[in-house]
Amino acid sequence: MPAAVRQIETVVKDRALIERRHVQICDAALHLFARKGYHLTSVREIAQAAHLSVGALYTYIKSKEDILLLVYRRILNLFQVKMSETIVESGDPTAQLRAGIEATLTLYDDYHDLILVLYQESHTLRKEALQQLFGVDRQYVSMFQAIIERGNRKGHFVAEDPNLAAIMILFLCAVWPLKRWNLKKYDLATVSDGVVGILLNGIGGGHGLRNDRAAD
Amino acid sequence: MPAAVRQIETVVKDRALIERRHVQICDAALHLFARKGYHLTSVREIAQAAHLSVGALYTYIKSKEDILLLVYRRILNLFQVKMSETIVESGDPTAQLRAGIEATLTLYDDYHDLILVLYQESHTLRKEALQQLFGVDRQYVSMFQAIIERGNRKGHFVAEDPNLAAIMILFLCAVWPLKRWNLKKYDLATVSDGVVGILLNGIGGGHGLRNDRAAD
Repeated sequence: MPAAVRQIETVVKDRALIERRHVQICDAALHLFARKGYHLTSVREIAQAAHLSVGALYTYIKSKEDILLLVYRRILNLFQVKMSETIVESGDPTAQLRAGIEATLTLYDDYHDLILVLYQESHTLRKEALQQLFGVDRQYVSMFQAIIERGNRKGHFVAEDPNLAAIMILFLCAVWPLKRWNLKKYDLATVSDGVVGILLNGIGGGHGLRNDRAAD
Repeated sequence: MPAAVRQIETVVKDRALIERRHVQICDAALHLFARKGYHLTSVREIAQAAHLSVGALYTYIKSKEDILLLVYRRILNLFQVKMSETIVESGDPTAQLRAGIEATLTLYDDYHDLILVLYQESHTLRKEALQQLFGVDRQYVSMFQAIIERGNRKGHFVAEDPNLAAIMILFLCAVWPLKRWNLKKYDLATVSDGVVGILLNGIGGGHGLRNDRAAD
């Protein structure tokens, strides 16, 4: 099928168009997943909401699982952009870690339903998609790990195992979407302060935190 | 239907029998949920594995959701027994909190698949069952909260909000079943030490921890 090959090649060549279509598909999918759940949302509905034909949609993604991965990659990208800005603005690992945790909690707040889907549905993914999802999560963890390692070297933190610490830090951020039903009396800022406080103290960065707070 | 009423009344009166049957149903369900998943396991299969007829099973539970609740209540009971022993053995809130976290991680290790089911399937429960499940979780949190409050009063901890701290502590224990795929290089003892360390330090109980470690 030279036409199909040509079409895919054309699409693959036009990175900006792919990017635009992926954003379009992401937005449509996010809205539908949040409203109907991942399993009850059909690819046809996503195509309709994205103002694409099903055929057109399939030139940008291979399966419904790809859409879920797209969506998680977008969240990771948003986090990476936010973290890069923070790392440029401040060389202080304590400030960087705090900013990282706060950025994660804000993203988890913005994409609350999607984080729920991540925990509820990831076991239903085929192995290849799951491995890709794990890859996204590992990249996210590695950004926290790099900050912790820098902080250890600079004497800000005393985290014995930066990898384990980074996994725990990223995981604890999910308390906001996953335990929201038990956090109704708290707002995002209070929970964010609580998570930052327990984690910075937890890896020995508490003095910096207390100094910062005293200086507020 | 006077016969049915009489039968339920008889069953309800014999608490020891109900308890035995619930344990029997729990064991069968646990095994099947772990192997096939909650949704793919039928009540008929649970009855067979529990060596009961479907009719007999329904004199002890009203729905499949009741079985899931039974199972979570059992985990909470196991934790409560373990915590009561620890609280009797030690009046030290730092030791109690450490024991509570370690007991939770051990239970989460023993019932790994069930904790996954809890996070994956609880959104599919009807409202009443979900409220009961939340009740079990709140009881679990309140045991940690009581230790933190005692520790605050005795000067062991400086947790600003014991309720929020307890929610975060219980949640972080779930890193072991939920992020197991990313913790493959660690064993339970290492993760347990890591979780205890970050949390005790996190609420200002780290000095006690470090002293204990130095004394090892």
